[in-house]
Amino acid sequence: MDKIRIIADAMGGDNAPDAIVEGALSARDASDIALTLCGDAEAIRAAARKCGRSLEGVEIIDTPVSVEMDDDPMCVIKSKRDSSMALGLKALKEGRGDAFVSAGSTGALTVGGTFIVKRMKGIRRAGIGALLPTDTKPVLLMDSGANNVCIPQDLVTFATLGSVYMNKIMGVERPAVGIANIGVEPHKGTDLQVEAYKLLQQSGLHFIGNAEVRDIPFGVCDVVVCDGFTGNIFLKTYEGTAKMMSANIKRILKKNPVTLIGALFVKGGFEALGRKLDAKSYGGAPLLGLNAPVIKAHGSADAQTFANTIAQARRMAEQRVVETIRESIQTTGGASDEGNP
Amino acid sequence: MDKIRIIADAMGGDNAPDAIVEGALSARDASDIALTLCGDAEAIRAAARKCGRSLEGVEIIDTPVSVEMDDDPMCVIKSKRDSSMALGLKALKEGRGDAFVSAGSTGALTVGGTFIVKRMKGIRRAGIGALLPTDTKPVLLMDSGANNVCIPQDLVTFATLGSVYMNKIMGVERPAVGIANIGVEPHKGTDLQVEAYKLLQQSGLHFIGNAEVRDIPFGVCDVVVCDGFTGNIFLKTYEGTAKMMSANIKRILKKNPVTLIGALFVKGGFEALGRKLDAKSYGGAPLLGLNAPVIKAHGSADAQTFANTIAQARRMAEQRVVETIRESIQTTGGASDEGNP
Repeated sequence: MDKIRIIADAMGGDNAPDAIVEGALSARDASDIALTLCGDAEAIRAAARKCGRSLEGVEIIDTPVSVEMDDDPMCVIKSKRDSSMALGLKALKEGRGDAFVSAGSTGALTVGGTFIVKRMKGIRRAGIGALLPTDTKPVLLMDSGANNVCIPQDLVTFATLGSVYMNKIMGVERPAVGIANIGVEPHKGTDLQVEAYKLLQQSGLHFIGNAEVRDIPFGVCDVVVCDGFTGNIFLKTYEGTAKMMSANIKRILKKNPVTLIGALFVKGGFEALGRKLDAKSYGGAPLLGLNAPVIKAHGSADAQTFANTIAQARRMAEQRVVETIRESIQTTGGASDEGNP
Repeated sequence: MDKIRIIADAMGGDNAPDAIVEGALSARDASDIALTLCGDAEAIRAAARKCGRSLEGVEIIDTPVSVEMDDDPMCVIKSKRDSSMALGLKALKEGRGDAFVSAGSTGALTVGGTFIVKRMKGIRRAGIGALLPTDTKPVLLMDSGANNVCIPQDLVTFATLGSVYMNKIMGVERPAVGIANIGVEPHKGTDLQVEAYKLLQQSGLHFIGNAEVRDIPFGVCDVVVCDGFTGNIFLKTYEGTAKMMSANIKRILKKNPVTLIGALFVKGGFEALGRKLDAKSYGGAPLLGLNAPVIKAHGSADAQTFANTIAQARRMAEQRVVETIRESIQTTGGASDEGNP
């Protein structure tokens, strides 16, 4: 069997290019993939030297331009069409690789994925699936920020995409799907949630109804669907609250000599909790609904996290997630204006 | 000076009427208020006997009907116009009291407040202000669930109402107002947030821009404004995440004999954290924008919590919150369809 070919944006993320190049090369060394790196060739070679890994066999798409975090997301198809992100997505579109990974701007990656790789037939909006750690199991939250405004059919699409992903990549046999909402009753929420509820009941998916957002941290279902604004509000509230609680736990344990003694007895448990709730442990966030796998790695990804995200991209290609989604969309029904954002 | 007159719905909440009657009577005994109780007179008298407090001087509005949690909120102005909640709101409207408190259905209280007590001139939507405990200080989140869908002007109204409340009741000199959003930049969010941003800049309020929801648990401003759907999503995610973290803390401390020893050294700190993050410590949630003070007590309110909420209602009347709001709305500008929900 041919090697899976991963294209990586060497210039995206807080720690690019050094940690990105190191992570990509270590993933290449750990598994049998073919690697293409997009970015400033000189900087890529310097980064490879620094971490002591070989660039032999690695294709480099050389460009001095990269997308910055404060750039307008549209730049990736306008003023920065020759950026490392845009050229990587173009290479993916042209079949010169099987999946693309970037730790760069989420907005630009969404625009680039939509306009360069393009959405598959029957999909009105691609969505970002964030894999959330919860008390009991990982939950895929989708859309987590690509589309601020959605129509009910989009939530059915996200449910289909998310169900395939959780099945193929996370091994969940029959993913339970819920709508992120302010209560469990079918009439709760705005028109979006009420109408999506009716559509999901007829979708043939394993729809369990509304997921009260209060219950999501306990892992109430496998796939939670919502518009991107609500998803992003949920995600950031979840992160912010966990961060605030963690800061308080640290202060309590370090308060005085007495608590420091107590801390010795319990710190193992709190370290394990920190690991359990670390979103990075699951890799990056897939942009689902496109014609090929695109994954957003964490902006703060270090080498190890980026290597994990490359491994995740490889699984998406191996497991034929995109092909399975294409078949599923035909079953659950697509939306009308495919191809037109 | 005449006594402040508080009207309480004796039949609302999980612990009604016993805990509600006990809480109301103990608040009456602790401070110099005149009390009116609405509900089944026989049940109210039985509850008073149980807690050993006198009903002397207490006016009772006797009715056998009460609003149940699963009733349609509209019932309060339709099939249950003679319920304890509806009759209490009517008494408030007629000036037979200075403030009304109920631990019953939030939806019914919002409908009843809007249609019986009515919104003041210049206010298109009344909103529920939830006082959130955060790491550093209480934050008023408004609207926290009365209006799923809002227009930009509503957020300016909520900002005005919330600023007056935080100033008069919580003693914040110049409350800082932020929009609950997915980022701090002015272009973030949907049209609602983008347009409200522009209006708030011109409002004369102490507007500090967007409040990234990730930062709200750290107390980034005093008043956070949003539509009621977003507010309710935030509130329930915040509660659910804190609950999940607390459950983990308990499990960690109780895991085995070794951690139980450690727990002895640190449990005081965790108990204090629990108290700090207990929303009930601030009393109930005011329904702001009406012609008289209406407060929603926690559905699970016990006698002490209900007594605190009565004290809060008394402060709202004493501090002339409604009158101050009426003056402020004229300064910051009202919305067009006042009086028509």
